[in-house]
Amino acid sequence: MTRLQIVTITETDDVRLADYVRLRDVNLRRHLEAERGLFIAEGEKVIRRALDAGYQPRSFLLAERWLESLADRLDDHQTTPIYLVTEKLAEEITGFHVHRGALAAMHRQDPYTTADLLGWDRLVILEDIVDHTNVGAILRNAAGLGWQGALLSPRSADPLYRRAIKVSMGSVFSLPWARLDDWGSAIPLLNDHGFTTVALALTDDALNLDQVRERLAAHGTGKIAVMLGTEGAGLSEQWIAQASLVARIPMQAGIDSLNVAAASAIACYALNQPPTR
Amino acid sequence: MTRLQIVTITETDDVRLADYVRLRDVNLRRHLEAERGLFIAEGEKVIRRALDAGYQPRSFLLAERWLESLADRLDDHQTTPIYLVTEKLAEEITGFHVHRGALAAMHRQDPYTTADLLGWDRLVILEDIVDHTNVGAILRNAAGLGWQGALLSPRSADPLYRRAIKVSMGSVFSLPWARLDDWGSAIPLLNDHGFTTVALALTDDALNLDQVRERLAAHGTGKIAVMLGTEGAGLSEQWIAQASLVARIPMQAGIDSLNVAAASAIACYALNQPPTR
Repeated sequence: MTRLQIVTITETDDVRLADYVRLRDVNLRRHLEAERGLFIAEGEKVIRRALDAGYQPRSFLLAERWLESLADRLDDHQTTPIYLVTEKLAEEITGFHVHRGALAAMHRQDPYTTADLLGWDRLVILEDIVDHTNVGAILRNAAGLGWQGALLSPRSADPLYRRAIKVSMGSVFSLPWARLDDWGSAIPLLNDHGFTTVALALTDDALNLDQVRERLAAHGTGKIAVMLGTEGAGLSEQWIAQASLVARIPMQAGIDSLNVAAASAIACYALNQPPTR
Repeated sequence: MTRLQIVTITETDDVRLADYVRLRDVNLRRHLEAERGLFIAEGEKVIRRALDAGYQPRSFLLAERWLESLADRLDDHQTTPIYLVTEKLAEEITGFHVHRGALAAMHRQDPYTTADLLGWDRLVILEDIVDHTNVGAILRNAAGLGWQGALLSPRSADPLYRRAIKVSMGSVFSLPWARLDDWGSAIPLLNDHGFTTVALALTDDALNLDQVRERLAAHGTGKIAVMLGTEGAGLSEQWIAQASLVARIPMQAGIDSLNVAAASAIACYALNQPPTR
């Protein structure tokens, strides 16, 4: 442990902690993290998963007791500063009670491009999902149910935002994802690459999700891209019109539509397996 | 509007606002709401849904602009005090920025008993789901996917807690639910009442959810109760052993299990309809 770059911090305005300020301020953080090319990993498990996925740390912000439990990983990054703080100080800097007292600032990287993902068989496509919780939950569901990747429209929320990472249980690191360069050409691009693009929408002429499953199975298990629309308004008319199929989850009359994350769970379950006989 | 009981409040320590203090303090609120037999409805839509469901208001806490948009409902409750506050004062009392500036304190009531629900065909059973967000999401999913009611183990979180109500989009008012008197006898009780009790669990001998669906369909669409276990540990061994069937959602290797709310969406979708042919 002796060669680690441990720096004990005692002042909340220490400039070395600038990556960690006011983590609850979404607007500030969105700006700051994009500008500096960083994101924040929170909690031991998430830090480990980010490192496993190849993300490089800029620094760690730890309460002392984490030095030991993260020792194996800290040893791998001996040139990375470790800012040692009390939990109280961490709370004053970040603005909230730090989940289990361990944070890391990581360098952003874009490990995948849209072109990488177009070669695969099972993708989830997010159109303007603006809520970090929903983005995280959808990526977790997709990863857990065996889908291979996710493409996000330009206006969708950042999967590397702290809240999205946390809700995803770190799936944002293990599930390949990329941001689409262009909203307008996204669905034609998928169609051209052999995907059956399935729009989830409550339109009158939508097929029941089970029918879609049957139809896909009848034509062999080809490439499938499930399209999920923005909270509230759902998928745009343009994306619905461009989709190969429109599917609806059978809903109880008089109830609001399901939350988009719940809908993603159902669609990823229903469309990623052969029909039951 | 002239006969309404409007009281303008200007001091944060006004005792008439005791029902609304420190809404973010879960422990305080849990105690206070149980003791006084009240719950808090937040936002116009939720307030309307609670009133629609027959819950009686103790008082309203409103910013002035809500007097007009809620006028029809306020007129129905002319003896109920309406505390008029600025949004700033509301925030100081409640401890957070009040969602759209309208709150109501409502009398708790238990419109259903376990016995009521045992006569129905499609129930969701919650074992010690302690997170209010998960309880709200599960009830929303169950209602949206056409299930008839929910039974909660004694230690499950309160569906009438503000956060659960909000996440449920008010489904906690429209979906009948009741709390089980006793954890140990719950599953035998359901079995005795003709339910096929389906435990969702990742045990080695669990059937694939699709197989369960097939099996249930082969025996006609009888009464089905889906059992969901606590966050982290999942269903208890006792409940799994007492279940008619154990079902698992096919998961990707190496990924944590799905969030329990996502699992509820998949199970309620898969088990509430005939198989695809």
